[in-house]
Amino acid sequence: MILTVTPNPALDLTWHVDRLAPGETHRVDTGHGRAGGKGLNVARVLHAEGREVTALATVGGASGHEFAAEAAASGIPTRLLPVAGSTRRSIAIVDRRSGEATVLNERGAALAAHEASALLAEAATLGGRARAVAISGSLPPGLHADAIGELVATLTAHGVPVVADVPGAALLAAARAGAAAVKPNRDELVEATGEHDPLAGARRLQALGARIVVASLGADGMLVLDPEGRALRARLGRTLHGNATGAGDAAVAAIALALAEASDASEAPDLESLARRAAAWSASAVLMPLAGELHPDHAALAREIAIDDDIDTDATEPE
Amino acid sequence: MILTVTPNPALDLTWHVDRLAPGETHRVDTGHGRAGGKGLNVARVLHAEGREVTALATVGGASGHEFAAEAAASGIPTRLLPVAGSTRRSIAIVDRRSGEATVLNERGAALAAHEASALLAEAATLGGRARAVAISGSLPPGLHADAIGELVATLTAHGVPVVADVPGAALLAAARAGAAAVKPNRDELVEATGEHDPLAGARRLQALGARIVVASLGADGMLVLDPEGRALRARLGRTLHGNATGAGDAAVAAIALALAEASDASEAPDLESLARRAAAWSASAVLMPLAGELHPDHAALAREIAIDDDIDTDATEPE
Repeated sequence: MILTVTPNPALDLTWHVDRLAPGETHRVDTGHGRAGGKGLNVARVLHAEGREVTALATVGGASGHEFAAEAAASGIPTRLLPVAGSTRRSIAIVDRRSGEATVLNERGAALAAHEASALLAEAATLGGRARAVAISGSLPPGLHADAIGELVATLTAHGVPVVADVPGAALLAAARAGAAAVKPNRDELVEATGEHDPLAGARRLQALGARIVVASLGADGMLVLDPEGRALRARLGRTLHGNATGAGDAAVAAIALALAEASDASEAPDLESLARRAAAWSASAVLMPLAGELHPDHAALAREIAIDDDIDTDATEPE
Repeated sequence: MILTVTPNPALDLTWHVDRLAPGETHRVDTGHGRAGGKGLNVARVLHAEGREVTALATVGGASGHEFAAEAAASGIPTRLLPVAGSTRRSIAIVDRRSGEATVLNERGAALAAHEASALLAEAATLGGRARAVAISGSLPPGLHADAIGELVATLTAHGVPVVADVPGAALLAAARAGAAAVKPNRDELVEATGEHDPLAGARRLQALGARIVVASLGADGMLVLDPEGRALRARLGRTLHGNATGAGDAAVAAIALALAEASDASEAPDLESLARRAAAWSASAVLMPLAGELHPDHAALAREIAIDDDIDTDATEPE
C-alpha cells in the first residue's frame, strides 16, 4: 500500500458557465464536487492505475461530509480523521468559451493541537505499514513545518521511503529529515532555497539531506537529481495545452510508485525510468479536465519523453 | 403557526473577494452557507420577528445535508422532506470594492412524481393547521403549476389564507384558485398577464380570482389592490441603496402576517396597514447584506411610508 497524506484537504467544487460576467446572474448546471487536495489527487491517480493506496486526510463540517461521500463514491480507500473545523472549499468557475478557470481557494480552519497530533500519529502508524508515503500540499494553520520533518524522519528510520511535495519551511524540514524524494516546482524551489537556478536549488535541497530531488519545471519537464548528485532532465519534445492543475500530483504519484517498487526490490529506484514516468504522467494529466486523472495514452507519452543527462543552462535558467 | 412552502429550495453559498478577476486564483475567507430559497427567507424574517413559523422544503444530497444543518443552527423550525436529487446551490461571489454580486444559480434536479405528491400532501396537512400559508419561488421540474393551484384551492376551502409568490403559470393558477393574496414583482406581472401597466396586470389577476394583489415595484414601492378593487400605493419617499435580494420575500412575510392576524380576528386584513408593513419590511431588507433579514429600524421606516390612494399613471407606467 502507498499512503498519501494531505494535511490541508479541500472540497473542490467546479461549475461551468458559457461566459463569466462579473456582477451578473448565470443559470448553470449542477456543479461537480470532488474530494481534493494534492494528496487526494496523488491517491486518485494511483487508484486509477490499479495500485493499492490509502489517502489520509482530515474532514470537518458539511463540506467534510460531502468530501467523504465523494471519496467513498470514487472508490479511493481513505482514512479520514474528524476535526472540528470545516473542510475548506476550492471553487472553480470554468468559462466554456475561453477555457479559463476563475478560482477561489478558502484559507481553511486551523487544526487544534490534539487534531494535528492525531493526524501525525495516524500518518506514522499507517505509513509504517506502507511501501511508500507521499506527503502533499500546504499545511493548515496549527500544523508546523517541523512536525512534517519529524514525520519524515520517523518513517525514514523505519525504512519507509517518503516523497514530500510541500512548500516553504516544510520542504526544507523534509529535506533535512532525509526524505527519499522531494518534488518542488520552480516557484517553490526559489521560495524555499532562494536560488533562481533550478539546478542550484535542487542541489541545495540535496545538500540538506534529500536523496532524490525532482523539480517540475512546467513545459521544461522534470529536472531530476539522483542520490549521487547525477542530474538529468526528462521532457516531452512538444507543448501540451490543457489543465496544468494536478500535473505535479501526477508526477508525485509516479515518484511514490517508483520508490515503492524499488523498496520492494531493496534497490535504489532507477533514475531514468522514474524521470520518464514522472514526466509522462505529469504531461498526461495536463490533457485531462480534472486533477487526479491521467490520459489513457500515458504509456505512449512515456515513450516520447526525451532524457537528457547533459544538463546545461537552458534547463537551469529561469524562463 | 405560519407555514412557508419552498418548492425549489437552494443552498445559498456566499464568498467575498477584494476584486473578482476572471481567470485568476483568489485566496478567500471561508464562505458562508445558508438554507435559502424564497420561502426560507420568508420564514427567516417571521422567525426573527418572533412569530411562530414552519418552513417546508425538500432536501437531498450533500448540499441538502448542509442546508438542513444550517437551518437547524439558525433555529428556524422546518419540515424537510428527503428527496433523491441534490438540493440545488446558488453561488454568490461578492466583490468588496464594487459591492457587486456575481451569481451562479444551479437549475436543480427534478422531483420524482411521488416526491412532488409527498410535498403537496405535506403542504396541505401542515397548511391545514396553519393561520396562513406562503408559497414562494420557482417550481422545480416535476412540479406542475396546476398542482400549486390545487394546493391553494384546498387550503382556501379549509379557510386558510394563502399568499402566493410564484412565477408564470403557477401565479395564474394560484389566482384562479382564489388565493387570499398574490405578490408578483413588475417583471412577473408582465410575464404572467402580458400587461405592461402594473395596475392593469394586477386587475387581471384579481379578475381571475385573487383577492388581494400586491405588486412590488422596486423603488416605486408596493401597488396594492384590495378585494373590492380599491387600489393604493405604499412607498418610501427616498431611494435606498443595498441588496434587493430578499426584499420581495420580506413583503411576503408582512402579507402572510397580516393575513394570519386578520384570520384570527375573522376580519379582512386592513389594507393600509398591510401595505405599510409590506413596503417597510421590503425597504428594510434592502439595508441588510443577506436575504431573510430586516433592518432593526423597520418600525421607523414604516412610519415614513407614504400611502397614496389616488393611483395615476406615474405608478402604473413601466419605467
